[in-house]
Amino acid sequence: MLSILAISLALGLSGAPALPQQPVAADAAIQATVGSAGFKAAAAALDRDFDRHVAETIRLTEIPSPPFKEAERAKVYLELLKRHGLTDVEMDAEGSVMGIRRGSANAAGGPLVAIAAHLDTVFPTGTNVTVKRTGTRLAAPGVGDDTRSLAVLLAFIRAMDAAKVQTKTDILFIGNVGEEGPGDLRGMRYLFTKSKYKDRITAFISADGTGAGNTITNGAVGSKRYHVAFKGPGGHSYGAFGIVSPAFAMANAIKRFGALTVPKTPKTTFSVGVVGGGTSVNSIPFETWMDIDMRSESPAELAKLDASFKALVAEAVTEENAARSTAQGKITAEVTLTGNRPSGQTASSQRIVQIASASIRAFGLTPSLSFSSTDSNIPISLGIPAITLVAGGTSDRAHALDEWIDLEKTSSLRGMQILLATLLTLAGMQ
Amino acid sequence: MLSILAISLALGLSGAPALPQQPVAADAAIQATVGSAGFKAAAAALDRDFDRHVAETIRLTEIPSPPFKEAERAKVYLELLKRHGLTDVEMDAEGSVMGIRRGSANAAGGPLVAIAAHLDTVFPTGTNVTVKRTGTRLAAPGVGDDTRSLAVLLAFIRAMDAAKVQTKTDILFIGNVGEEGPGDLRGMRYLFTKSKYKDRITAFISADGTGAGNTITNGAVGSKRYHVAFKGPGGHSYGAFGIVSPAFAMANAIKRFGALTVPKTPKTTFSVGVVGGGTSVNSIPFETWMDIDMRSESPAELAKLDASFKALVAEAVTEENAARSTAQGKITAEVTLTGNRPSGQTASSQRIVQIASASIRAFGLTPSLSFSSTDSNIPISLGIPAITLVAGGTSDRAHALDEWIDLEKTSSLRGMQILLATLLTLAGMQ
Repeated sequence: MLSILAISLALGLSGAPALPQQPVAADAAIQATVGSAGFKAAAAALDRDFDRHVAETIRLTEIPSPPFKEAERAKVYLELLKRHGLTDVEMDAEGSVMGIRRGSANAAGGPLVAIAAHLDTVFPTGTNVTVKRTGTRLAAPGVGDDTRSLAVLLAFIRAMDAAKVQTKTDILFIGNVGEEGPGDLRGMRYLFTKSKYKDRITAFISADGTGAGNTITNGAVGSKRYHVAFKGPGGHSYGAFGIVSPAFAMANAIKRFGALTVPKTPKTTFSVGVVGGGTSVNSIPFETWMDIDMRSESPAELAKLDASFKALVAEAVTEENAARSTAQGKITAEVTLTGNRPSGQTASSQRIVQIASASIRAFGLTPSLSFSSTDSNIPISLGIPAITLVAGGTSDRAHALDEWIDLEKTSSLRGMQILLATLLTLAGMQ
Repeated sequence: MLSILAISLALGLSGAPALPQQPVAADAAIQATVGSAGFKAAAAALDRDFDRHVAETIRLTEIPSPPFKEAERAKVYLELLKRHGLTDVEMDAEGSVMGIRRGSANAAGGPLVAIAAHLDTVFPTGTNVTVKRTGTRLAAPGVGDDTRSLAVLLAFIRAMDAAKVQTKTDILFIGNVGEEGPGDLRGMRYLFTKSKYKDRITAFISADGTGAGNTITNGAVGSKRYHVAFKGPGGHSYGAFGIVSPAFAMANAIKRFGALTVPKTPKTTFSVGVVGGGTSVNSIPFETWMDIDMRSESPAELAKLDASFKALVAEAVTEENAARSTAQGKITAEVTLTGNRPSGQTASSQRIVQIASASIRAFGLTPSLSFSSTDSNIPISLGIPAITLVAGGTSDRAHALDEWIDLEKTSSLRGMQILLATLLTLAGMQ
């Protein structure tokens, strides 16, 4: 999960948008699932199988999986998908691994439900990924974001098999690459725009992160990131005084950036994350640079902010070239797109949101909707019904070296059942 | 020499300030020196001794002497000063080495003339300082700035001894530390404010760099350098959006800095040399920083610029704390002085400038006055007559790895004689 999310719209709180008032059909569908002998047998299997689930979480966590270096973990996960009896198990051209659990005979080649956990962590090569276990608590970089979800998917397959659950549609189980920052959702981008499944997925669940299980991320916070390099002739700070400076041009751009106004709703943000440049205190730099980040819940607001940013960079360059001498050369700005996540929203009236909400209610929790930046951003931006859910347990410090999760059995199993009931209802139980 | 100097006021050029029109006494004094048997014998000794001078230049160049790591070269130079028969040879508390060539018997403890070359180069530990010799050309980092001048001082002592030259005042020969950037003139600062010679030096010559020998640096370009760290609470670029950012505060400061107006005369400059800060594109930085440089020929203008800079940093911080939320913490700025070179000028009417000009004329060249930032900045700022001179030869690429000098004999000897005649006239020949 890209970030711990600030906006969680608790349903029923005054002022927060409520879900549409016709949840009856969804509740009925979930009750049918949860009340079925098949689901009960699957839930019992999850319970019996829990220690293996924990062990699998540890095993997978201890295989390093930095951005763009997911191959080692991907290969192990591919083998696990095979051993779990999936068909069509493959690594796609982007490096994600996946396989099909067949639905009824006539499902082949038709619409399917996909559920994914991401293989990548934010941690670079060399990070110590040994899991420290204290009771039910597991501490290790990446353990909760998102390694445990990989193990949840495997536990689901085993539970469905143990319970002889047959779904109407195929279910595609995915361990995908490229969810975290630099990956820029490359796994999902490939899956939904180039892979053989791109036109078959009619509902998508990203299983990402750990938590009570009552949060449905149906809003995709979009982002654009740029590396901007301001370049100029450079020179001696005293001898060449009076010539244009990339530092002054960049400062002008950053000051203008900081003065932009953005709406609170839909939430829209901007930030200068990293700055650098120059070689010595007594030289006018020949280059300064910055990495900037812009986000919005709204594609239109993000596009507006993006246009404003590009314009202010150009204006800052023009102003610096007018303010000082260009006799030795002009200032230029190279604006490189380094991240591009589409924003959007799966309407709360969509069946996938209704089903997930009903499942959360069925297990005694109150659903809340949230915006975040997850693998679901891609299908959401393409109009494909998609949500991101967690699978129980508790956690903290994602993206930090002291990341931990607590797989206390009762709360963990509850979250897993919410997720499984949602998945099975979407896929349809025979 | 800190930098290749932009301002060289060729005397006699229209518009350039001319030397006062009473050089007669100075010319007469120089003619007396140059026409003396002692000087002629010393000049002949310099000629005979030239190969040794070149060899000594190479030897000293090949002893690395980075800023704050001059000790190895200093020890060798100390031994050379001893072997050249100086008295009171010592390394002072700052690391500079020096010794006295006694004047007439009654000179002991009285006013003296000092001549210094600096031991330090700009090059860090590990730089290849092997000298490549091609004919009269020597290429190596630091060879011209200022190692050759160290060898010039030794050649002078040998020539004076060979010619049995006796001066009226003592002459203090110095190989000093800390001329280049980070050294911040620490060698001279100690010599003129703390050492046992601090009240005895009535005329000071810095022998620095290589060139025709007609330039007298009597103006000290002063500088102030700061490292400014802008600090704030930091946070997630999306989750914590709206809090104050060090990047915006710094940009505001830099933009204001760039908008300052400074006089062309006395030349006054400012620059942002290096910027940095921030940890990731999706975080609001908890710190950004910049290294800035301000210079002026005028102490008053430098002080004015310095005050403006400090004020604009404070204003930028105040504005950022007003523009965004300080709920998580405020922006602060830590302004650390990293360089402080006083400016000033030895008036062209001063005897030391008149004598040097007369010496240059005596060898057929046209004197020109210039401003620079050299070891002379310190005595100049204290009102002690001081100039910086070169000792003939040609050079280029100071401060670059491909630095070179050409010790073509005729031009090199001419520069050395100009410098020696100036020194001996200031010290007085018996």
